[in-house]
Amino acid sequence: MEPIAIIHNQYTDRFAIPRQSGSTDLLSVVVFLPKYRDENSLRHIEEFSHLWLIWHFSEIHQEGWSPTVRPPKLGGNKRVGVFASRSPYRPNALGLSHVKLIGVRKTKEDGAVLLVEGGDLMDKTPIFDIKPYLKSDAVQGAKGGYAVDANTFLKVDFEGQAWENLSPEERQRLASVLREDPRPGYQNDERRYAFFFDRYEVFFQIKDGTVYLDEIKNAAD
Amino acid sequence: MEPIAIIHNQYTDRFAIPRQSGSTDLLSVVVFLPKYRDENSLRHIEEFSHLWLIWHFSEIHQEGWSPTVRPPKLGGNKRVGVFASRSPYRPNALGLSHVKLIGVRKTKEDGAVLLVEGGDLMDKTPIFDIKPYLKSDAVQGAKGGYAVDANTFLKVDFEGQAWENLSPEERQRLASVLREDPRPGYQNDERRYAFFFDRYEVFFQIKDGTVYLDEIKNAAD
Repeated sequence: MEPIAIIHNQYTDRFAIPRQSGSTDLLSVVVFLPKYRDENSLRHIEEFSHLWLIWHFSEIHQEGWSPTVRPPKLGGNKRVGVFASRSPYRPNALGLSHVKLIGVRKTKEDGAVLLVEGGDLMDKTPIFDIKPYLKSDAVQGAKGGYAVDANTFLKVDFEGQAWENLSPEERQRLASVLREDPRPGYQNDERRYAFFFDRYEVFFQIKDGTVYLDEIKNAAD
Repeated sequence: MEPIAIIHNQYTDRFAIPRQSGSTDLLSVVVFLPKYRDENSLRHIEEFSHLWLIWHFSEIHQEGWSPTVRPPKLGGNKRVGVFASRSPYRPNALGLSHVKLIGVRKTKEDGAVLLVEGGDLMDKTPIFDIKPYLKSDAVQGAKGGYAVDANTFLKVDFEGQAWENLSPEERQRLASVLREDPRPGYQNDERRYAFFFDRYEVFFQIKDGTVYLDEIKNAAD
């Protein structure tokens, strides 16, 4: 099995990735590898509003798998079976995400690429397969176990000076990452934390359910 | 990538497989390979009503892939891109299906197995990954392109003598396969066709939208 495509977006740090497919509107570009770069393979794909991506947890792969995992959504305190989770630490490190298809764009450098929205894949993630989302994939009334109501967002404080250097669009994107609590692992104290997002290194603190932006540095500096 | 499990069910012939995940109530058993046979990996899985299976089109794999395919649902006349289809003839021959989780059963021979319903996987299909179906996987109002309304069933004629040797349960299961038109490829004439189902070889004809059961032989004879 080899990748057919690579995704490109602003999630340059795993802590910036949304917890769940569909929870942001950040745009990603799916670029096919030269061997699979054939416009015909996308014929009629724009009739579908959503796609499935099957991809590789390539960052995690080497760390192996474990029969039980502690989902961050459960605060890291409860162990569940790896097959009862979407954890990356699984025997075959496959990820599954649905994305909204914005469209097919023809580019000079990369041929026909897919513009998609709402994915939870990190920048440069290798993709193994792309399938249309069928109406029958939407199971009415599926019972979701522990993961159902876990998507509660933090409040984002926009007062800090650090926001001033960002464009309105950047502000919105960064806020959508911050509200999901990008602290690593199961850490939930009020210390200053940092992560990379797009071309920035972002410093923040969380107090009483609110995220405060401390500082933004250009990662290239 | 190696399989973690094998599925077992009555779909012993690829022409008997439902066109779509979820369209039958046939039961399948997911048996883990010894290396991945650990009850802990299933802990809390029963809190989910549905699961995703990512599997291998192992029967098809050797036949390679094509940038365009002709979905049987479109009568085999229209070509669409392979990534705009769920065709097995894709670069990485991965299948994706949701199934209803009936439960976990502890068996003497195979350890803890999963009982699932509604899959479209052929008997003995290797499975690469099992994930819980999350509520967020159900995309409301996803637009399904050509595949949306294609699931029209044939009428099944129960008058023929061949039905008499089957139990009520077998009749129901066989009818659910026949109504999906198990003729190979794009053949749609009134000739007598055959396929294997469970331990039977099944002979049938289709006339004016109705399936007639001609004969049932025990495949082992």
